[in-house]
Amino acid sequence: MSGNTYGKLFTVTTFGESHGLALGAIVDGCPPGLSLTEEDLQIDLDRRKPGTSRYTTQRREDDLVKILSGVFEGKTTGTPIGLMIENTDQRSKDYSNIKDQFRPAHADYTYMQKYGVRDYRGGGRSSARETAVRVAAGAIAKKYLKDFYGIEVRGYLSQLGPIKIESVDWDQVEQNPFFCPDASKVPEMEAFMQALNKEGDSIGAKITVVATNVPPGLGEPIFDRLDAEIAHALMSINAVKGVEIGEGFGVVDQRGSQHRDEITPEGFLSNNAGGILGGISSGQDIIANIALKPTSSLHIPGRSVDVHGDPVEVITKGRHDPCVGIRATPIAEAMLALVLMDHMLRHRGQNGAVKHSVPVIPASVKK
Amino acid sequence: MSGNTYGKLFTVTTFGESHGLALGAIVDGCPPGLSLTEEDLQIDLDRRKPGTSRYTTQRREDDLVKILSGVFEGKTTGTPIGLMIENTDQRSKDYSNIKDQFRPAHADYTYMQKYGVRDYRGGGRSSARETAVRVAAGAIAKKYLKDFYGIEVRGYLSQLGPIKIESVDWDQVEQNPFFCPDASKVPEMEAFMQALNKEGDSIGAKITVVATNVPPGLGEPIFDRLDAEIAHALMSINAVKGVEIGEGFGVVDQRGSQHRDEITPEGFLSNNAGGILGGISSGQDIIANIALKPTSSLHIPGRSVDVHGDPVEVITKGRHDPCVGIRATPIAEAMLALVLMDHMLRHRGQNGAVKHSVPVIPASVKK
Amino acid sequence: MSGNTYGKLFTVTTFGESHGLALGAIVDGCPPGLSLTEEDLQIDLDRRKPGTSRYTTQRREDDLVKILSGVFEGKTTGTPIGLMIENTDQRSKDYSNIKDQFRPAHADYTYMQKYGVRDYRGGGRSSARETAVRVAAGAIAKKYLKDFYGIEVRGYLSQLGPIKIESVDWDQVEQNPFFCPDASKVPEMEAFMQALNKEGDSIGAKITVVATNVPPGLGEPIFDRLDAEIAHALMSINAVKGVEIGEGFGVVDQRGSQHRDEITPEGFLSNNAGGILGGISSGQDIIANIALKPTSSLHIPGRSVDVHGDPVEVITKGRHDPCVGIRATPIAEAMLALVLMDHMLRHRGQNGAVKHSVPVIPASVKK
Amino acid sequence: MSGNTYGKLFTVTTFGESHGLALGAIVDGCPPGLSLTEEDLQIDLDRRKPGTSRYTTQRREDDLVKILSGVFEGKTTGTPIGLMIENTDQRSKDYSNIKDQFRPAHADYTYMQKYGVRDYRGGGRSSARETAVRVAAGAIAKKYLKDFYGIEVRGYLSQLGPIKIESVDWDQVEQNPFFCPDASKVPEMEAFMQALNKEGDSIGAKITVVATNVPPGLGEPIFDRLDAEIAHALMSINAVKGVEIGEGFGVVDQRGSQHRDEITPEGFLSNNAGGILGGISSGQDIIANIALKPTSSLHIPGRSVDVHGDPVEVITKGRHDPCVGIRATPIAEAMLALVLMDHMLRHRGQNGAVKHSVPVIPASVKK
Repeated sequence: MSGNTYGKLFTVTTFGESHGLALGAIVDGCPPGLSLTEEDLQIDLDRRKPGTSRYTTQRREDDLVKILSGVFEGKTTGTPIGLMIENTDQRSKDYSNIKDQFRPAHADYTYMQKYGVRDYRGGGRSSARETAVRVAAGAIAKKYLKDFYGIEVRGYLSQLGPIKIESVDWDQVEQNPFFCPDASKVPEMEAFMQALNKEGDSIGAKITVVATNVPPGLGEPIFDRLDAEIAHALMSINAVKGVEIGEGFGVVDQRGSQHRDEITPEGFLSNNAGGILGGISSGQDIIANIALKPTSSLHIPGRSVDVHGDPVEVITKGRHDPCVGIRATPIAEAMLALVLMDHMLRHRGQNGAVKHSVPVIPASVKK
Repeated sequence: MSGNTYGKLFTVTTFGESHGLALGAIVDGCPPGLSLTEEDLQIDLDRRKPGTSRYTTQRREDDLVKILSGVFEGKTTGTPIGLMIENTDQRSKDYSNIKDQFRPAHADYTYMQKYGVRDYRGGGRSSARETAVRVAAGAIAKKYLKDFYGIEVRGYLSQLGPIKIESVDWDQVEQNPFFCPDASKVPEMEAFMQALNKEGDSIGAKITVVATNVPPGLGEPIFDRLDAEIAHALMSINAVKGVEIGEGFGVVDQRGSQHRDEITPEGFLSNNAGGILGGISSGQDIIANIALKPTSSLHIPGRSVDVHGDPVEVITKGRHDPCVGIRATPIAEAMLALVLMDHMLRHRGQNGAVKHSVPVIPASVKK
Repeated sequence: MSGNTYGKLFTVTTFGESHGLALGAIVDGCPPGLSLTEEDLQIDLDRRKPGTSRYTTQRREDDLVKILSGVFEGKTTGTPIGLMIENTDQRSKDYSNIKDQFRPAHADYTYMQKYGVRDYRGGGRSSARETAVRVAAGAIAKKYLKDFYGIEVRGYLSQLGPIKIESVDWDQVEQNPFFCPDASKVPEMEAFMQALNKEGDSIGAKITVVATNVPPGLGEPIFDRLDAEIAHALMSINAVKGVEIGEGFGVVDQRGSQHRDEITPEGFLSNNAGGILGGISSGQDIIANIALKPTSSLHIPGRSVDVHGDPVEVITKGRHDPCVGIRATPIAEAMLALVLMDHMLRHRGQNGAVKHSVPVIPASVKK
Repeated sequence: MSGNTYGKLFTVTTFGESHGLALGAIVDGCPPGLSLTEEDLQIDLDRRKPGTSRYTTQRREDDLVKILSGVFEGKTTGTPIGLMIENTDQRSKDYSNIKDQFRPAHADYTYMQKYGVRDYRGGGRSSARETAVRVAAGAIAKKYLKDFYGIEVRGYLSQLGPIKIESVDWDQVEQNPFFCPDASKVPEMEAFMQALNKEGDSIGAKITVVATNVPPGLGEPIFDRLDAEIAHALMSINAVKGVEIGEGFGVVDQRGSQHRDEITPEGFLSNNAGGILGGISSGQDIIANIALKPTSSLHIPGRSVDVHGDPVEVITKGRHDPCVGIRATPIAEAMLALVLMDHMLRHRGQNGAVKHSVPVIPASVKK
């Protein structure tokens, strides 16, 4: 299939450019019977929405999502769910000056090489604005997972540039504009971002997403392993340059005796694996980290070439996030939810009817 | 589709368990006209083969691959290529003692939860032995990429436990059993592995794979981005817990002014992006790193439970690699080659016929 | 993937119910550079539109299509094309009386068994109204095939109930409301339909679609043969119960010496094969027939059961086509165009770069 | 994906040429727990085997299938099942004389146009010999359907050239070499085939396949409708030129009042629909017909061209079936079983868990 569809049984196909008429998605394969309203989707869209704090782009989009099909009398019917978000605040003129330039670290050059043409307004299809519909689609998956299987998908900012969190308090995550679970780090982050804005520079970030109450058995080895598909989904988010499951790159320097998560009848004793063994969920929390590169749209001039190959100096004047990572938490949650929903249906289709008597090991020892 | 097929236009479907009659694969979508013999595949199989040094498992498998179809008079015909590797050294009795145990950090428990049954001999389908046919399939992709497009896919060990390489000399990679490109580190690695073997423990590793001479334009945004599919393919390798593109997790602490790879008419000035922008290849080297966890089969006892949920002490007595990363370089190369081959065909199908006049920027400034 | 996407490289995903807010589609994989306006799509939509003659349903829908993305400055960009058709004439109350009934030969019962719920208004997702967006998507494929490859896809009504056409004059097809290529049969068809309307009954039909100037080489044996995918696409049209390629069921009573299309250097001497041999196009015209069942919405009472299993008498009072076949010609053309477009891209991706010197045999001997 | 894989959740990927080393398949997605031996597959392979009567090709192949993986201690494990049939009776020299000729109505010309090369021995990949592995794979699906769901898939020859059966007695089907369910027609068929053999000509045939005890709810509208996928699967069989569901082309001349299968609480009153409404199974018998063209390998000379475009006279001397339809019954059964198995798993994955209280209508009124 072409590249704008994600999933096998629970699929999401998206369309839309930053400055076109609308963005949208078709969510196909959602089982019938889920209570669903536009408000259910709006919650996560509002979490991702630009213009909500001084640390994000000042483009103002209401990002109001419409459900065009697939829901009847308040419940999903099993038929495809059409979603649409109209673009309202399109200042296309902002971009005319970069029409013929290849901004460094943007997709300008690669889109031109691939397609021979590009919608240069706001990055066109390569804009992070495209992730709005992923968030809407992911909200459907999140709701289904929670309502029918009790699975919860959540995320937080675990590092902002040099600032690492030291503790995770889930109650803090929604209390600050960074999705930071460590309240003690918020002032430091605020000061850091203000200094950065003055310099016209940007910064990278690290996001952690966690799924709890996932049953054991999800994932289809060899190639459609759960971890492989999570890596695919998370790496497909704009600006992501790295994905880790569990201990991730920390395992390089671990010994086997240290890494292996020992098991007792009372539960797993650790979770270095991040909830996945042999590509299949173990019932432990699924934990993944992603690295997001710093925004490439800077007020600091940079060298590049134009469409004729001639050297140019590029300065971005539009409205941009100085740290794309800040708004990435709902996007990462959405993608993880899409993977889990798809695998839940695949597992149920292929193996879910299996009767067996294997005891379920608790996710972790209760302390 | 089910989980044992990789790719869209160039697909690989595999079968086989560690101690079954044979492993095999069907490579579908290889264009006609490629000169191909079993020897072409054997080269990479021999690089991956167990028992070649004291640092790898002592199981001895010739890993002789047979081409059963798809090649006629020395050339591929465009029809599916059937591959088979017969298992010869199957000491199934080695495993009878762990038949009812869930070895920690293995797939024993998750396979049982998913399927309700498992072939416990040598890990069955979850054994790293399965990667042998991936290497054979990948060798076809590697050869096509090189013969028809001039693309080269290579890899090396970049870290063994705490030992990091400090330089890359491609000529050294095949001169030592570690695929280590820094000859000065080899003695240290040897000493480390010997000490580890004595302790009966294992260690993680980091592998780097690089593709050179990749044309710009490969990758299908949004979801089938080149980086997303590379992440999928590499994370599907047994024991991999992290994937990075370019600077990877290093971007978290980078500033935009530092990260962006500036461009001059003479070429890109750096390659933090790892050759991919907006999910599409830029023509720069594609660079990816993977983290491999330490082998979980240890001679050091560990706690676990059995199929009845009762506590057991697990000791592995079979023949195992103390560092699965050591033999992983050819596997990672194979997976990267499969991704690139698939995307080359997809790009050629959908956009390759586009006529445009965008100048190609050199991968890097010649020094 | 789920069931609302067609195609591999050129994919169409649709959403929408008969009486919902809107119908829509995402066309993914259209190569860049195609000149495209809403008017290009409207032509075929108007051909399919209800209410254009007394022989079709009197529901009046303007069926105005909007292009929401993927086109920039009048040309496709290679990114997904979002299409939307808003529903305007929704008389939902017409259907309240059949809310709890399973109309015979409709999808009411099967949708309820599958999903446990259904949008009963106008058949919901199972309504032939859904084909409007297929026609819009197919129009993109038709235009690309014509503009870039010179392939033309056309169709006509070849039989209306007992009335068979005896000649094909392409110029006549658009001159009557039946898409009938034999002007001499039109009065007979008109009389037949008027009598049928009086009785409140409906009738079946047969449609023929033809693609000319198709290059040899399209189709991916074994399973993705061109004929197999045409059969899939055409059978997916509402009410279709049979598909033939070339001579179709006529081959059952043919001898090999009669069936085989002999070849001379001047061209093929006949076309019993319908332009496909071994699942691959031969360069001859591709010819397919489909059988469409009579509409099941009748003014004549019929026996059925309701959702409680109790017997009911069903009479349909809504506005319906007495012969769904009459408006099916543009739909069949659209589906054939989608198949050919997808296979053109697949062929170009996998084998199109093959250099060979096989002479091309003319489609037929010029007379 | 490429063209040699069928199915989404229950997939079959095949390889192999007529005169290569072996044919084979990977069956991926078979749920665990099915009792399976090579003998289970051999039954259907023997039904399809050449050389069993004077009315089929005299090539003698034992067609012994080996299960290489996916079965452990007599039961499927949920991992891919590798199948292999070695070729033993390969008289390649038979074909050297047609190496440079394009036999009329064969795939010789189209394969050359597609791939620029072909394995000319016995038709290579386009040989009907390829269907042997489909039969083996289909036998797994048939067994699963029967053992776990009580679904039975059977077929028979319904027409041989001009000879139509007049009654169906399932007990007769395996009692004659034609799979003819009407014993009274067998002598006529024998006489017809003997006369045909003398003339060196061949004849078409029609096969009917029936699935009984299929639950309502299978099929994924819009594009993955059950009937559409059956049409795809059956049309993918070599030599098939037409597919019908239920009344098929008979519906063209039916009235709605006649076609609609009325329903009473005691069951459906007829089955014109062939068990599928709106693309979803209704619980009635699924009935499909296919038309198979006459074999194109004749002893009667025919006109064609060679690879240089020069005219040649073609006479086939090899061993061939004078009616490919005779051995096609097990193949058609296999393909129908593959479709049903795949849809059973898809349905179970996406909607099977739906709780509803819709009463099930008996397939037909008991008489």
